[in-house]
Amino acid sequence: MQHTNWIQAAPGVWKMTVGSPEGLTPLTCLNRQPRKEAMAAMPEMPLPLNENETELIPLTAGGSLLSFPLDISEELYGMGLQFMRMNQRGRTRYLRVNSDPQQDTGETHAPASFLVSGKGYGILVDSARAVTFYCGSALRQQEGASAQARDRNTDRSWKATPVSDRLEIRLPQEGAAVYLFAGPGMLDVMRRYNLFCGGGVLPPRWGLGFWHRVPTLFRDAEVEQEAMEFRARDIPCDVIGLEPGWHSASYPVTYEWDRGRFPDPAGFVSRMKEAGFQINLWEHPYVSPESGLFGPMQPLSGNYSVWGGLAPDYALEEARELYTAQHDREHVSLGISGYKLDECDGSELTRNSWMFPPHASFPSGHDGEQMRQLYGLLLQDMTDRLYRKKNRRTYGLVRASNAGASNLPYVLYSDLYDHRQFVRALCNASFSGLLWSPEVRRADSAEDWVRRMQTVCFSPLAMLNAWGDGVKPWSFPEVEPIIRHYIRLRMRLLPYLYTVFAEYEAKGIPPFQAMPLVLAGEKQMDGESEETAGDTREGFNTAEGAYGLQAGREWDDQFCIGHDLLIAPLFAGESGRDVLLPSGVWYEAETGVRHEGNHIIHVACPLERFPLFVREGAIIPMMPALNHVPKGPQEIPVEMIHFGKMPGQSMLYDDDGETFDYEKNGGCWRKLIVKQAVDGKFSGTAEEGGPTCRYRITGWRFGQTRLPLE
Amino acid sequence: MQHTNWIQAAPGVWKMTVGSPEGLTPLTCLNRQPRKEAMAAMPEMPLPLNENETELIPLTAGGSLLSFPLDISEELYGMGLQFMRMNQRGRTRYLRVNSDPQQDTGETHAPASFLVSGKGYGILVDSARAVTFYCGSALRQQEGASAQARDRNTDRSWKATPVSDRLEIRLPQEGAAVYLFAGPGMLDVMRRYNLFCGGGVLPPRWGLGFWHRVPTLFRDAEVEQEAMEFRARDIPCDVIGLEPGWHSASYPVTYEWDRGRFPDPAGFVSRMKEAGFQINLWEHPYVSPESGLFGPMQPLSGNYSVWGGLAPDYALEEARELYTAQHDREHVSLGISGYKLDECDGSELTRNSWMFPPHASFPSGHDGEQMRQLYGLLLQDMTDRLYRKKNRRTYGLVRASNAGASNLPYVLYSDLYDHRQFVRALCNASFSGLLWSPEVRRADSAEDWVRRMQTVCFSPLAMLNAWGDGVKPWSFPEVEPIIRHYIRLRMRLLPYLYTVFAEYEAKGIPPFQAMPLVLAGEKQMDGESEETAGDTREGFNTAEGAYGLQAGREWDDQFCIGHDLLIAPLFAGESGRDVLLPSGVWYEAETGVRHEGNHIIHVACPLERFPLFVREGAIIPMMPALNHVPKGPQEIPVEMIHFGKMPGQSMLYDDDGETFDYEKNGGCWRKLIVKQAVDGKFSGTAEEGGPTCRYRITGWRFGQTRLPLE
Repeated sequence: MQHTNWIQAAPGVWKMTVGSPEGLTPLTCLNRQPRKEAMAAMPEMPLPLNENETELIPLTAGGSLLSFPLDISEELYGMGLQFMRMNQRGRTRYLRVNSDPQQDTGETHAPASFLVSGKGYGILVDSARAVTFYCGSALRQQEGASAQARDRNTDRSWKATPVSDRLEIRLPQEGAAVYLFAGPGMLDVMRRYNLFCGGGVLPPRWGLGFWHRVPTLFRDAEVEQEAMEFRARDIPCDVIGLEPGWHSASYPVTYEWDRGRFPDPAGFVSRMKEAGFQINLWEHPYVSPESGLFGPMQPLSGNYSVWGGLAPDYALEEARELYTAQHDREHVSLGISGYKLDECDGSELTRNSWMFPPHASFPSGHDGEQMRQLYGLLLQDMTDRLYRKKNRRTYGLVRASNAGASNLPYVLYSDLYDHRQFVRALCNASFSGLLWSPEVRRADSAEDWVRRMQTVCFSPLAMLNAWGDGVKPWSFPEVEPIIRHYIRLRMRLLPYLYTVFAEYEAKGIPPFQAMPLVLAGEKQMDGESEETAGDTREGFNTAEGAYGLQAGREWDDQFCIGHDLLIAPLFAGESGRDVLLPSGVWYEAETGVRHEGNHIIHVACPLERFPLFVREGAIIPMMPALNHVPKGPQEIPVEMIHFGKMPGQSMLYDDDGETFDYEKNGGCWRKLIVKQAVDGKFSGTAEEGGPTCRYRITGWRFGQTRLPLE
Repeated sequence: MQHTNWIQAAPGVWKMTVGSPEGLTPLTCLNRQPRKEAMAAMPEMPLPLNENETELIPLTAGGSLLSFPLDISEELYGMGLQFMRMNQRGRTRYLRVNSDPQQDTGETHAPASFLVSGKGYGILVDSARAVTFYCGSALRQQEGASAQARDRNTDRSWKATPVSDRLEIRLPQEGAAVYLFAGPGMLDVMRRYNLFCGGGVLPPRWGLGFWHRVPTLFRDAEVEQEAMEFRARDIPCDVIGLEPGWHSASYPVTYEWDRGRFPDPAGFVSRMKEAGFQINLWEHPYVSPESGLFGPMQPLSGNYSVWGGLAPDYALEEARELYTAQHDREHVSLGISGYKLDECDGSELTRNSWMFPPHASFPSGHDGEQMRQLYGLLLQDMTDRLYRKKNRRTYGLVRASNAGASNLPYVLYSDLYDHRQFVRALCNASFSGLLWSPEVRRADSAEDWVRRMQTVCFSPLAMLNAWGDGVKPWSFPEVEPIIRHYIRLRMRLLPYLYTVFAEYEAKGIPPFQAMPLVLAGEKQMDGESEETAGDTREGFNTAEGAYGLQAGREWDDQFCIGHDLLIAPLFAGESGRDVLLPSGVWYEAETGVRHEGNHIIHVACPLERFPLFVREGAIIPMMPALNHVPKGPQEIPVEMIHFGKMPGQSMLYDDDGETFDYEKNGGCWRKLIVKQAVDGKFSGTAEEGGPTCRYRITGWRFGQTRLPLE
């Protein structure tokens, strides 16, 4: 046993190297530059752990164990895209990629080996191996363990899982670099983590519009017809996704257009662009023998096949170049806006086993375990770099990610389909620098349909995925007006969403936040004058009131978008629900009902409504419910909606919406201020926009209690 | 890559040592002597694999891969107590112990790293590490993989899981001894495996009677009252099981009597014995701080606690001695008949995590992974040796086993409760030298109750486990006569069951056999004159008829007990089912309906009946439905029931039913012969019994078509 030895790696971040870490890791394969300036602007903090209390223990079977003390009530969040719970305290998390994560083991599509503690520190193990976190689940014999013994025969306080006061992390055999992130609060930890990983992603503006994927075997004319149906029905849509059928052969795939279904890809893409549609292409990483890539890629691939195709070694520069050149030539230069990277998350122990085994070997010297853990990152990174080279932003979907992914323009999704799990994953993604789309496919009923569509409209990527079942927003005619309303509401909120993502990019603030982050944020922001000016919030009352009531409930079914919107989805079968409101005053955005925060309230919600709350003092920038995001330099009218009886201030971000020019020119940040005169009258001012701005502020509405319909 | 190098280890068994195997393995910890004489009596066979086609491949991440060729249609069975399927071809089996095996990953209570191929060979990896078998689930790139590529867009023959023609076994880092077992058929492989592991277990005769476990907090008087209720209702019962409440503290446990509930344990046990009841004690391996064992065991335990108790290091002789002496003094010398060894199968990735972690270290130098894999074997072995020393046989229950367990007097059970899975596990146990009890707890309805009770009465251990819910055989009064009938039928069949187990002990023949073993047995027995005398069966017709019809169905819901009984359980909701009958002629034992074998038949079965078939020519020895097995030297009347229109012959085994004297005196084997005279009349003869015999043959019934009611 030895004590740990941490060296500062960036402001508020420390690093320890254990053993001889392998070369290929999440951080090294992405190679994003930490945003040290933004990190330096955060409060200076000491090492957030007592080095004398942390231990590094070599294990007889090889590898070593990192051991940290835990407080009795300390909560542990993160560890990737977890579906089953938020607080992982008491659980063992086996962080291996899994394409079908049906059990609560820790395995998931995005097994990021990063955790954030409720006490305000974070730990990242940067490894391509599956790491196991024992989150207070292993109870050492020597440390008062006996005191936990209970007689289950007679003692009702007996628990199936005893409480351990150590967090133990089993490091890979070869070792790993371990990073420690300071707080003081959980939100600070997440900001430091996201900034260390390069800053959050800023999607192109169109990426925040509505997405629709068409049935897999649609030909060009059918796609165009379905797309135009959105226009005819006045339902906004920015992106149409093509599924496997666009490939000349798929499973494994060719990455080449099927010339029967798409005789003129360039013409098709160009006509769609003209109508305001981006085209997103489904693919997976396995190269068909019928692809032109097969021959050149074969010597650069692993020694096991997937579905008879190649599993290329994307740790090799040469393989990346082949892939990138082909994708540029066949898709990107035609105007394709991005990809849906499916099945990067293959795992062997699922219902259908199709992935290369962990003992596969790859020409770069890496094995199947490493490649499986990183395949999602490698594919995301390759495509991101391809678009970056062209100074075009992309935004897409991916099934597999890992640590370090904050800066990647991808949103996770899954073949799972439990609505509650989907909302929980949305919450949990915020603890790991990930984004998640609770995508909608089929629905059991009009009610289920509405509830799922409402949820997805308030997510990082609002998509209907009809590839297999052909559903449309108008599939349940009796509720089509409701669906239209929420898709249009998403469009109207786009300037707000875009600003929220810009704060992710620049400050590392998670755009979507689980409640523990929101509550932690309230506490920690008290000390940050810049962001709390005009802010009347108080720390959440932990002794009584709402917090006292929430014991035993995780509130993993609601979340915030940015600082001012709170979303509390409903699920089929429910006509109302409890909502935990943070401190301050909140307005039900569709009814105008005012609620005192720091309470648990109950809201009744008929099917045509959705529990959406706006914070008093918020200034929500809204644009018209355009059918799609305006192209290029076109001006976008934006109206400022101020809420409630208090003054407020916030920021509005804007830029060209498409390029990376903001990295040089900083984009267009405008401070919005609403003041109240002695007569109670409100007035609003917005800073001048610069040449990069697209938004034209058309007016202000003050003292609102609901979001205006148009 | 190198070819493999096998050295003969016993008749029909070869061994290869890869790397430097660790000292503690299933075979070394049990240290049973292979039954070489019995093995030598089997057909001599060459190495069942072509050494040029097998490969040993070192892996970059350490360890090595053993690779064997597979035929396109080769079936792979075994790999422990699998619940989800029989034929594991195409699956990856991760053979780690798991206390809550809800997914089809290979993890289970008894992850024996042994497989048997339909081609007639078996492979055992003797390791305390979790081994992974890729049963044709990993498709190498170089070997015609491209030919498997399909265009899912258009080709309906696309499959989610491609077919690989290699069996790959990832060996532990340190290496392992690997054993190869010859056939020629699967049943021969299983016989060689079971004999190599010391021969099958022969339970005490009372172990095959009916078992009942009482509610956990019952005191002595309540136990006695419930036991006597069986007598009053004329429902046979041989064993009463006590649950956690007999311990003075439990979870962790003391192994000491609770003097409040059991003020006079010796008197209690003795009174129960007097009434014909054996007492079985529930325990688990974790020692309470309140136990007298705690102090002395503490320095001999692992460095992690379970429920605040100790996890002793039973790889240490000293720890085994402490445990054994205490158990002898407190239980065995009082007359306790055996144990239910619960929760030896702790695993970390289950709903409730309570087990020591794999990185735990133990004084013997082993780690948690090894101890978790072997804990069940170690506990079974310790208790078995304790009883052996006293020349008393025991029979009990265990939750955790592994390879090499054929000789251990324990039957596996689970907290799972899916009736179909339970029957499948019963089938699968036969491919791994294991026994399984589909124990009954609660039921959803009288129908469910009857169907579960019928199944358990035809299993290796017929038990009702009322520890938590207090159910009794008479809990559904409307069906009590049906339940009574089947418990009594089990008692009547006890001489048949006992002989079937004796054949397991002496010849390694699995007493309960999945259908693939039964069908394989038909083929391979053609060449064995001794066992086929008087046998008119033909090989199963694989070209047409039943076998042709069975494509796509595993027949994992029926099994044989010994050679002559076929059991096809029904499940709640069913009023009939299809049954695959092997060749020959079969009689529905309760209706007398005659069926031609080598066919799939449909049987209708009202609730009071059960699909139970007897083979034509069988001679079934039956005893009266006594309320319990007679004690000591008491004589047992047995009647011979001959079936059908053909002569037949079989063996009847008998001994004192309680001691290991049979290992010296060979027990009492009597050949039974039924001959048919020219006038069609049958006559039967039984060899003389020796002094070890208990059975008195009271008569013969010839040409029967159903089992007599009394």
